[in-house]
Amino acid sequence: MELFDKTILLKIEEELNRQVNKEGKLYEASKHLLFAGGKRIRPYLSVLTYLLKKDDIDEVLTPAVSVELIHGYSLIHDDIMDNDSERRGKPTVHIVYGEPIAILAGDLLNTLAFNAISQMENLEKAHEILKIVSKASVKVCEGQATDMEFEEREVIPTIDEYFDMISKKTGALIVAPIEIGAVMADFTEEERKAICEYAKRIGMTFQIQDDVLDLIGDKNTIGKPVGSDIVEGKKTIMVLHALQTLPEPEKQRFLKILGNSNATDEEIKEAIEMLGPSINYAKDIMKTATIEAKDYLKIFDEEKRKRLENIAEFIIERVF
Amino acid sequence: MELFDKTILLKIEEELNRQVNKEGKLYEASKHLLFAGGKRIRPYLSVLTYLLKKDDIDEVLTPAVSVELIHGYSLIHDDIMDNDSERRGKPTVHIVYGEPIAILAGDLLNTLAFNAISQMENLEKAHEILKIVSKASVKVCEGQATDMEFEEREVIPTIDEYFDMISKKTGALIVAPIEIGAVMADFTEEERKAICEYAKRIGMTFQIQDDVLDLIGDKNTIGKPVGSDIVEGKKTIMVLHALQTLPEPEKQRFLKILGNSNATDEEIKEAIEMLGPSINYAKDIMKTATIEAKDYLKIFDEEKRKRLENIAEFIIERVF
Repeated sequence: MELFDKTILLKIEEELNRQVNKEGKLYEASKHLLFAGGKRIRPYLSVLTYLLKKDDIDEVLTPAVSVELIHGYSLIHDDIMDNDSERRGKPTVHIVYGEPIAILAGDLLNTLAFNAISQMENLEKAHEILKIVSKASVKVCEGQATDMEFEEREVIPTIDEYFDMISKKTGALIVAPIEIGAVMADFTEEERKAICEYAKRIGMTFQIQDDVLDLIGDKNTIGKPVGSDIVEGKKTIMVLHALQTLPEPEKQRFLKILGNSNATDEEIKEAIEMLGPSINYAKDIMKTATIEAKDYLKIFDEEKRKRLENIAEFIIERVF
Repeated sequence: MELFDKTILLKIEEELNRQVNKEGKLYEASKHLLFAGGKRIRPYLSVLTYLLKKDDIDEVLTPAVSVELIHGYSLIHDDIMDNDSERRGKPTVHIVYGEPIAILAGDLLNTLAFNAISQMENLEKAHEILKIVSKASVKVCEGQATDMEFEEREVIPTIDEYFDMISKKTGALIVAPIEIGAVMADFTEEERKAICEYAKRIGMTFQIQDDVLDLIGDKNTIGKPVGSDIVEGKKTIMVLHALQTLPEPEKQRFLKILGNSNATDEEIKEAIEMLGPSINYAKDIMKTATIEAKDYLKIFDEEKRKRLENIAEFIIERVF
């Protein structure tokens, strides 16, 4: 069994194309990043969750891609906010189309997400999914704002604050598609609760692994410069751990490099080396969370839950 | 009868406050412009439309403010795109909070609009309104992109292209709240069609009057510099008319000033003077459209339609 089923991915791709289907500069800008080789992990999670209890996946595709559209808009706007010029190995939307069109292209994708939900035929499920998606999207904005605040503020965030922030910024858009799958496949209350606990944990590991890859990934594979989070001063779990555990002189040296946009490649490399033990700490957290996540799947059919178990493993092993 | 009923406006204000009700920098940024003295004409139109057929306005408030939230987000993002530093006599959101938070504050309002719809209790009406609002929001993005394209492109837009553009950029968010009122008050097909024809016309006059005020309004009353559209090279109906009717030497002189960010106050004044006959042309269009708009109201109760008739008049007479 392949982890990513090509037939399912193709159906997701078709549905995305159907939702963003006009011509012209604005739509081109909206599609630029959306069709630049994303993993489609969010809608794929909707489908895999749905398959735990039901078979005919066609009805889950439209709500599933709504989350991918939200994800797409947030990437376009994030790149403007962070002034990033590369994503997925391609120039970002504002670099190619200019900032005004990039803002608008993000706004369009945001709107098209809700437009997709409005096309659903089952009114009750549509309303439930509107609630899920709009609440998750609010959290994404809030988490993003907190992340930016962490970069600027003097007081170092606590680990609790950090986990709360990533549960909003990243977790919400992992939990939402899984909840969508649960709603569409008529999960019981108990089943929905269990799958959400699974979802929260893989949402967390997803963000942590992203941050790990920024430090030890391969530039060409991750599609952006290694150590860019260091330059931007992002308070990742590794950075927080390092600031708590590094001896004073190293800590001062580390703080000189963190958030310094003029840091040399040498200095970035030095900072990454200082983060070695913190990367191991992060990996331990991810391992524990992955075991817990898989435990929550145990109430579902052994055969059918296999792919979701593998996804949990994949998230912390992936190199891109 | 006062045109703007204070009791209704207060209820709209309360509902808006309920929808955007958290603390912190992101929410402050989202509220900065939203509570800076907007006319609330869009939700007010929902309520007035609703009152044509039903009395208890409480149920229309939540969907009504969803459109105000969409309008609010689009203003914040427009100001970034146009690099405007003043709106409603106050510094714009990106000037006060910086661009990243301003982008996010707009995204939040956009999301909160759909979050508001998700709180509605009548599922069928909620779904219908989700369709109306998401379709209108797509049009706003498309119209905005076309407007920007008009500013840049060599070929002068035709009058038809212009009307199509403003029907999306501005008209969609005037028609949508009126349709919301119609849905919530269970209008018949015929009544809904009539009120939409009214809506399209006042949506058009609303944009044209905005453009007129940019030329002949008072800086302090309109809350932004007079002639800013000239400097930005906006292709308003007056500009299009002038380009079709000015004798060649004047036209060339006019084109030298239009879109020239270094134009002096003297030159802007000169351009506005050249637009005199075109302003009269625009006023004639508005007068005809207002008469037509009011004609479409004739199928409704004489007493109850009064305020909507007055709103149509107000739109073309207002000075802010």
